[in-house]
Amino acid sequence: MAEFETGLPSVRQIQSFIKDQKEVEVKVSTNDLLVGKIIWQDPACLCISDRSEQQTIVWRQAIVYLKPDPKPE
Amino acid sequence: MAEFETGLPSVRQIQSFIKDQKEVEVKVSTNDLLVGKIIWQDPACLCISDRSEQQTIVWRQAIVYLKPDPKPE
Amino acid sequence: MAEFETGLPSVRQIQSFIKDQKEVEVKVSTNDLLVGKIIWQDPACLCISDRSEQQTIVWRQAIVYLKPDPKPE
Amino acid sequence: MAEFETGLPSVRQIQSFIKDQKEVEVKVSTNDLLVGKIIWQDPACLCISDRSEQQTIVWRQAIVYLKPDPKPE
Amino acid sequence: MAEFETGLPSVRQIQSFIKDQKEVEVKVSTNDLLVGKIIWQDPACLCISDRSEQQTIVWRQAIVYLKPDPKPE
Amino acid sequence: MAEFETGLPSVRQIQSFIKDQKEVEVKVSTNDLLVGKIIWQDPACLCISDRSEQQTIVWRQAIVYLKPDPKPE
Repeated sequence: MAEFETGLPSVRQIQSFIKDQKEVEVKVSTNDLLVGKIIWQDPACLCISDRSEQQTIVWRQAIVYLKPDPKPE
Repeated sequence: MAEFETGLPSVRQIQSFIKDQKEVEVKVSTNDLLVGKIIWQDPACLCISDRSEQQTIVWRQAIVYLKPDPKPE
Repeated sequence: MAEFETGLPSVRQIQSFIKDQKEVEVKVSTNDLLVGKIIWQDPACLCISDRSEQQTIVWRQAIVYLKPDPKPE
Repeated sequence: MAEFETGLPSVRQIQSFIKDQKEVEVKVSTNDLLVGKIIWQDPACLCISDRSEQQTIVWRQAIVYLKPDPKPE
Repeated sequence: MAEFETGLPSVRQIQSFIKDQKEVEVKVSTNDLLVGKIIWQDPACLCISDRSEQQTIVWRQAIVYLKPDPKPE
Repeated sequence: MAEFETGLPSVRQIQSFIKDQKEVEVKVSTNDLLVGKIIWQDPACLCISDRSEQQTIVWRQAIVYLKPDPKPE
């Protein structure tokens, strides 16, 4: 995955969501919407932790879009 | 992603949509239609800002087509 | 995209559709059928112009098949 | 596409279908079933000609399976 | 396809299914379930032969999962 | 698959699920949910063993997300 470089805007933006413990919505190819905080990212996956602290490893290849949750925390 | 080179027509066209703050429609693999202005592009993603300034990071791998919004601005 | 070389049959065929302003149908992964003339191609995308001159940038990754419109022009 | 080498079984099998003008069924990711004879293959696409000689360029990325038509010709 | 190396567990497991003429189920991205014996594999495809000896070339890119048929042969 | 390196968080996390014989849920692109223990991983696939010891080889390309089963074992 040549597109995983720490200087890229998309990688840096996700890194700032991790640092700020920002709640995000992740839409995936099966149409599921995963909601939670991003715990880590690597070139293949993101890890999302939901409100009950359940962790889900999401494959980047299946991500359609990601946005910060607009609702106040 | 060898196909991300700043000289390519598709990359330059998107760059001009960013510069002109052109409203676009982006159809993605889940059949969602995202509408807004493109804020930035990198080899992995585009970032779209909608009318309420909500930002969405869209993965290129999930993009089917993109077109300028035909309605007058 | 190693498969984008100007000598390939598929790239040359599309180049001839562009030159001849041939109307084509493009089926994409969301099952939409886009109809129009191809304006340009690059390694990542094709650009289709429909009868009202609306341009759509179609990502190659989402193309399923493409055929010349069988109806007389 | 490193997997397009003329010595591979899959590439040779398709080459023999072309030579023998064998009718085949091609199932694609949108669930369409294309039926016809393969005219040419390149690393990105196959070209199928149906019974009315309409040609369709099919992207390999969208092919799920391909089989010789079991019905007698 | 860097992941096709004869020493990989997945490639070796399929090789043993070929050798043992094991009946398998292959689930593909269109949700079709193909059942039969694997005749050969190459970096791009598997070839499945069903009970009526009809052969189907399945593209690896479309394979979701594969399992030995649990029913006694 | 450049993203398969044993030092990556996602690869190490799966390795720890294998070692701990942790039950996991794997959501794939066809929307099927596979449940079982991971037996092995390689750059192309994971192998899941369900409660009746039936083994399924799952292609990474089709994985959407994976999570440890929250129910007590």
